[in-house]
Amino acid sequence: MTSDKGLLIVLSGPSGVGKGTVRKAIFDHPDTDFKYSISMTTREKREGEVDGVDYFFKSKEEFEALIEQDKFIEYAQYVGNYYGTPVDYVDQTMASGHDVFLEIEVEGAKQVREKFPEALFIFLAPPDLTQLERRLVNRGTDSPEIIRHRIDEAKRELKLMNLYDYVVINDDVDNARQRVQCIVEASHMKRARVESKLRKMLLEVNQ
Amino acid sequence: MTSDKGLLIVLSGPSGVGKGTVRKAIFDHPDTDFKYSISMTTREKREGEVDGVDYFFKSKEEFEALIEQDKFIEYAQYVGNYYGTPVDYVDQTMASGHDVFLEIEVEGAKQVREKFPEALFIFLAPPDLTQLERRLVNRGTDSPEIIRHRIDEAKRELKLMNLYDYVVINDDVDNARQRVQCIVEASHMKRARVESKLRKMLLEVNQ
Repeated sequence: MTSDKGLLIVLSGPSGVGKGTVRKAIFDHPDTDFKYSISMTTREKREGEVDGVDYFFKSKEEFEALIEQDKFIEYAQYVGNYYGTPVDYVDQTMASGHDVFLEIEVEGAKQVREKFPEALFIFLAPPDLTQLERRLVNRGTDSPEIIRHRIDEAKRELKLMNLYDYVVINDDVDNARQRVQCIVEASHMKRARVESKLRKMLLEVNQ
Repeated sequence: MTSDKGLLIVLSGPSGVGKGTVRKAIFDHPDTDFKYSISMTTREKREGEVDGVDYFFKSKEEFEALIEQDKFIEYAQYVGNYYGTPVDYVDQTMASGHDVFLEIEVEGAKQVREKFPEALFIFLAPPDLTQLERRLVNRGTDSPEIIRHRIDEAKRELKLMNLYDYVVINDDVDNARQRVQCIVEASHMKRARVESKLRKMLLEVNQ
């Protein structure tokens, strides 16, 4: 039933892990039927960019007015410009029964978690993280500094993933794409979700 | 890390829904790398059946002694014979890091839920259940008795699925097979699972 609410899917992870590439692979794939949430920004529109397609382009004053009105599910400033996810598009798209997909930084994901605790949070992790053991097995080949650095980094990433529901290792873009799609597919089959759909159906039939 | 504990996967659903066919499709598929739990029974071995492959064949006395020792995660009697899932095989296989797959009746699934609350419970549902609405849209074509019967059946199935984590619609054997595999794959990516694996890894590295 399309009247059922869509899922909010949040893909995030440490910077440099390849979030954008995986997101692109997901949206280039024919099996993908969720909507990409268009961000809002105050930065200059670049050659070839289209308002409402690449971004919603706003002035600093407009953006700050929307912050005041609590119209973002997350926002941040980078190099003097605002970037944010407008809540209206997300709400409307989910209400229409479509899944909405956000690819955002970890700081933004924290903000989304507060507003949409029931969203699907997917952490994209670098392959090093799970290959850590293998890479440290021959300790003799690496200096103690390098080993220490890798361990510290792994600990930092472990802390970051704390708020997420799932962890996807980005060892290969197409694998990561397939894993994200599988997580979304499985989430649609969760009993509570199917059950509420069926109950609604039975209620309608009984009328 | 193979030292990590495997998952216990329980596929069940109303009788006649096609559990056995979906299970066969899963185990015939090259991507499947979980172990099928062999049942124990007191019924006669049939031509061509092999002890320890098709079933573990036991006498009634042996079976009842094992019941006394709490050696089944579930068991039941059908037409005078016992059928059950021995706990040792399941425990050992999971401890070795492999996923174990059970395809059992709903009554048995209830017993497993009590002993393995953390297992993955998948309810296989008949396609009628989700097609209910479509099938009842033209009310004029069906008698009130048939409509009432379908609604009652749907309600009964809704009640049954209460204990499950996921619901897979068996509209097509290969679709159902793929959905079950996807649920298992997603479960392996759950943050708590990945996290505990990583923590263990870091502890080992730190020693």
